[in-house]
Amino acid sequence: MTIRAFVGMAWLLTSTLAWPQQANVNLDYNPQKNAENLIPFSANLNSPDVADDGTVTFRLRAPAAKEVLLAGVAVLTGLQKPGRGVPFTRGEDGVWTLKAGPLKPDIYAYHLLVDGVRMADPNNTMAAFTAMPPYSQLIVHGSGPAYYDARNVPHGAVTRHVYHSNVTNGERELYVYTPPGYDRSRRYPTLYLLGGSGELPSNWIYDGRANFIMDNLLAEGKAVPMVIAIPNNQVVHRNNPKHTELTFKIFEADLRRHVIPLVEGAYSVR
Amino acid sequence: MTIRAFVGMAWLLTSTLAWPQQANVNLDYNPQKNAENLIPFSANLNSPDVADDGTVTFRLRAPAAKEVLLAGVAVLTGLQKPGRGVPFTRGEDGVWTLKAGPLKPDIYAYHLLVDGVRMADPNNTMAAFTAMPPYSQLIVHGSGPAYYDARNVPHGAVTRHVYHSNVTNGERELYVYTPPGYDRSRRYPTLYLLGGSGELPSNWIYDGRANFIMDNLLAEGKAVPMVIAIPNNQVVHRNNPKHTELTFKIFEADLRRHVIPLVEGAYSVR
Repeated sequence: MTIRAFVGMAWLLTSTLAWPQQANVNLDYNPQKNAENLIPFSANLNSPDVADDGTVTFRLRAPAAKEVLLAGVAVLTGLQKPGRGVPFTRGEDGVWTLKAGPLKPDIYAYHLLVDGVRMADPNNTMAAFTAMPPYSQLIVHGSGPAYYDARNVPHGAVTRHVYHSNVTNGERELYVYTPPGYDRSRRYPTLYLLGGSGELPSNWIYDGRANFIMDNLLAEGKAVPMVIAIPNNQVVHRNNPKHTELTFKIFEADLRRHVIPLVEGAYSVR
Repeated sequence: MTIRAFVGMAWLLTSTLAWPQQANVNLDYNPQKNAENLIPFSANLNSPDVADDGTVTFRLRAPAAKEVLLAGVAVLTGLQKPGRGVPFTRGEDGVWTLKAGPLKPDIYAYHLLVDGVRMADPNNTMAAFTAMPPYSQLIVHGSGPAYYDARNVPHGAVTRHVYHSNVTNGERELYVYTPPGYDRSRRYPTLYLLGGSGELPSNWIYDGRANFIMDNLLAEGKAVPMVIAIPNNQVVHRNNPKHTELTFKIFEADLRRHVIPLVEGAYSVR
């Protein structure tokens, strides 16, 4: 690379990549900062728009709506406003706005209630889903990455395995985290990480960020390297009235017959 | 395990696990079949409800709405109804319904337009997102798993790596598929799989199902085992007016400096 090409590249980077702003470029600790004045592709407004003081502006274009509420236990608890929801205000242009907070740095699940219809935020690319319909994520940043954010430290890897289960009679998922520098000549302790009755294994990675939490703990010398196995603990429809009583037996059978043998066969664990 | 326990388990399985029905238990080829008469957790209706003849019933509780449309290029093209959307009909109970199709077996992206507000289906747990807000997935099944479904065949694994990029100045994702029976003493060809300007690497796995397509091709002897590397090709905000012209240079730099060295260092490729 010539010096001229390098200078050109440096200019591109500083001028266009300073703030991802729902751009899904980097795993940024502050992805919702509105610094480029660009809205996400296929959205029509920026929402949520998180200011450095932790206040958040939500926006929704809904000219025909009679009521727009911010809802979701996590965000309402963070705002100390329990109840049905916090109302937006309608503007002359049909755009509803709510400025809320400040909120403490954290990741908050939320949704909108538009004339009683519950929906993920139609302008937010930061979405999540589990064994329930999709919802949106509000990421309130601090002055830098938090303990759960992707920092510039050595990273482990997460592998999604798929196996056939004779217990549930189908193909199932298993996620396995290996620490940075994973070395097959060593033997690692294993943590089996299970969700509650609503989680999927992907939630531990994409929403709970168990891998980044471990990367950061390891970088700070606060944990020993370990393998983390995250099985799918959904074995009965979540709304089956016998969900709880059926789940324990079936899940234990899947764990013993398939999950543990797979982990112990594929990884160097003790 | 005694015979009695085994009989008990067999009864549980056949009586409760026959149809996942948005249960997120197995990676089923027909997850939206409504056979248990249960709605997903935190939803209030079953939508979409796919019949064996390929017709689909969508439902939305929205008593205050004046217009509900089924929208999205993929589903409207499948229905041969291009345009703004296909209208639902309001019932006396405030539940809007649309019976559409039959549709050919496939996976269709769709969303709803409720009084002009575009949203993912609030009753469907099968959601997806990319560098744009979330949308819903309609899975129309055939008489068995399709070429893209999780079949009972040997499965490869998909590993999500995270690395620090000096090009985009942050932490970034890379997904790598290894074929079933991946053996470090062999050397594999590598396919670098890149999305269009809107995709994230996760879309190739969770929506495009590149891993299951390869598993199935390998099981049928129609492909040679290969490593598939799926980098994140988002390097500039998707709605930046210079998105296209900037992307090629920056992405090439990330590919050469980080992605290819990571793949060639961590995997046995030729």
